[in-house]
Amino acid sequence: MDNWYLDGVVAPSEKHRNKALAWQNQLTKPAGSLGRLESLAVELAALQHNLHPSAARVAMAVFAADQGVCAESVSAFPQAVTAQMVANFAGGGAAISVLAKSLGASLEVINLGTVQPTAALPQVIDATIAPQSGNIARAAAMTHEQLQLALAAGRAAVQRAQANNTDLFVAGEMGIGNTTTATAMLCRLLEVDPALLAGPGTGLDSAGVSHKARVIEQALNLHAQARDPVEVLRCLGGFETAALVGAYIACAQTGIAVLVDGFICTAAALLASRINPAIVPWLILSHASAEPGHRLAVEAMGQVPLLDLGLRLGEGSGAAVAVPLVRLACDLHNGMATFAEAGVADKAR
Amino acid sequence: MDNWYLDGVVAPSEKHRNKALAWQNQLTKPAGSLGRLESLAVELAALQHNLHPSAARVAMAVFAADQGVCAESVSAFPQAVTAQMVANFAGGGAAISVLAKSLGASLEVINLGTVQPTAALPQVIDATIAPQSGNIARAAAMTHEQLQLALAAGRAAVQRAQANNTDLFVAGEMGIGNTTTATAMLCRLLEVDPALLAGPGTGLDSAGVSHKARVIEQALNLHAQARDPVEVLRCLGGFETAALVGAYIACAQTGIAVLVDGFICTAAALLASRINPAIVPWLILSHASAEPGHRLAVEAMGQVPLLDLGLRLGEGSGAAVAVPLVRLACDLHNGMATFAEAGVADKAR
Repeated sequence: MDNWYLDGVVAPSEKHRNKALAWQNQLTKPAGSLGRLESLAVELAALQHNLHPSAARVAMAVFAADQGVCAESVSAFPQAVTAQMVANFAGGGAAISVLAKSLGASLEVINLGTVQPTAALPQVIDATIAPQSGNIARAAAMTHEQLQLALAAGRAAVQRAQANNTDLFVAGEMGIGNTTTATAMLCRLLEVDPALLAGPGTGLDSAGVSHKARVIEQALNLHAQARDPVEVLRCLGGFETAALVGAYIACAQTGIAVLVDGFICTAAALLASRINPAIVPWLILSHASAEPGHRLAVEAMGQVPLLDLGLRLGEGSGAAVAVPLVRLACDLHNGMATFAEAGVADKAR
Repeated sequence: MDNWYLDGVVAPSEKHRNKALAWQNQLTKPAGSLGRLESLAVELAALQHNLHPSAARVAMAVFAADQGVCAESVSAFPQAVTAQMVANFAGGGAAISVLAKSLGASLEVINLGTVQPTAALPQVIDATIAPQSGNIARAAAMTHEQLQLALAAGRAAVQRAQANNTDLFVAGEMGIGNTTTATAMLCRLLEVDPALLAGPGTGLDSAGVSHKARVIEQALNLHAQARDPVEVLRCLGGFETAALVGAYIACAQTGIAVLVDGFICTAAALLASRINPAIVPWLILSHASAEPGHRLAVEAMGQVPLLDLGLRLGEGSGAAVAVPLVRLACDLHNGMATFAEAGVADKAR
């Protein structure tokens, strides 16, 4: 088996971090007064090994796949919506399509398998593994081979992004039922009861949420032996989540900073960081999702997300909305005058 | 005396709000899943009386003035920095200059009076009232005539913005010592002790903050009779804060939505809304400042700011950073496909 995801990652540069921090303190503002915009620029300088960090070239990739667990009636939307949304991504009508266009970012849609076939579509990469993942309440989500294919699909997207000199990578996901699989993975990783973590997803009522928690509990019992993070992903995840895991690890190995989206993506980020802990500095949490379980996943990542706007859409939409913050942080870092240049007196000392 | 600031304001359109909300619910996403981006677009549709709200044309105005209270040693920076920063705004090196350029927004600097003279500078409008406001610990900040001039300077900036078909107005301020005057106004408006509200501003240490609180207490005692909001502004404010008050009221009267910046601007917004309560729907709080007193001002406005990034710079910088959120909210509202258009199944009902 190819264990590429265990390979080393690019180390952030301590030298560039320190120089960038010293530079921030010379700019015409009270030291620290730009808050997280300062630390974002400094971190990006360390990650990019560049005193002039950039988020100009943003690559977005949306991984789509159907979930076998939909057979257990865990979603407010019919399963056919996954394939329909793939077409909507390609057609420019989905939220992430609109955001990518507004931000001048590239957008790839990678179809890892939908129950309802989709026509061949421009902008959609067919990486079909199977029509859907296994129903985690009754079987493993993936075979070992399927897991490798899904991880590799994530890595391939990052390799394409690297070929385009990407500064910042945004991944998203689409898959009716995938808050169920993501919640199952989180319950295992965090050792939390499904009743505490299961949420409404796209809009379940409270009876639906209770049912979803019971399905997740059934899955956790069935896969009680799955404790290693790779095995947690294989048994309880989905193709699109595995692709996210592969993409996040590949970004760190390639040296591309990542904006992590909401609930599903943070679950994937946490799982990826359990597989390969060195990737953590490369993962910037973009927003706090309205999905209630997100808070615990965020705490486990040890970060405060940049935004808290009550989003719960997925697709990478929250990460996309945070892109301008990263760009403005870079512009301020690179464009402001120093006290000396501007002839402005620094703080009385 | 000309009481233009008491005149009526443009009423938000209930019809456009309801239609925009219905439109949001047809877009290809679970209803409500774009959180505050949905409500922002809906509110802007109501304010602009337009089902296709826009934040494309953004006008920024920075009001600068010196504070007489600097004689009481209330700031970490020397008073000369106000005039030096006016030159830095014009020269493109300040944070707000960089942000305006990145966002494609117009930027005006309005100089209401600095102790250190500034050369005539392009992009700087000379609206000098006096070299500085009165020292609020020993006198009123302004005469009645000076207050009228400062309010009018704010309104004039909005009139210029209106002539340029502005969609969204961002005001900022610069004035060494103006967290002291803003805190004094807030203490009176909210009936809070200065010791609870005074903060470090540009970087005072704890002894400095205690001294600042005592100076504010002295000012509050001296102006114990100032209870009417206009009189609070005249006695305890500054030229630049009065201009902000005039600008915010004029925006509501003109029908231009406002992104309110941090501590000083929220104090001005609260004061303006006490003078003319109908303006409130026009004022969108952009960010939660790191200045500790901001929280109480925000609560008094009854809003949750869009961003919380630990900013405490002023100049309008936090409001500027929120501009892309408003633009993306509009783009999503105007650009996403409906369920019917995209052939996507809506939630099972």
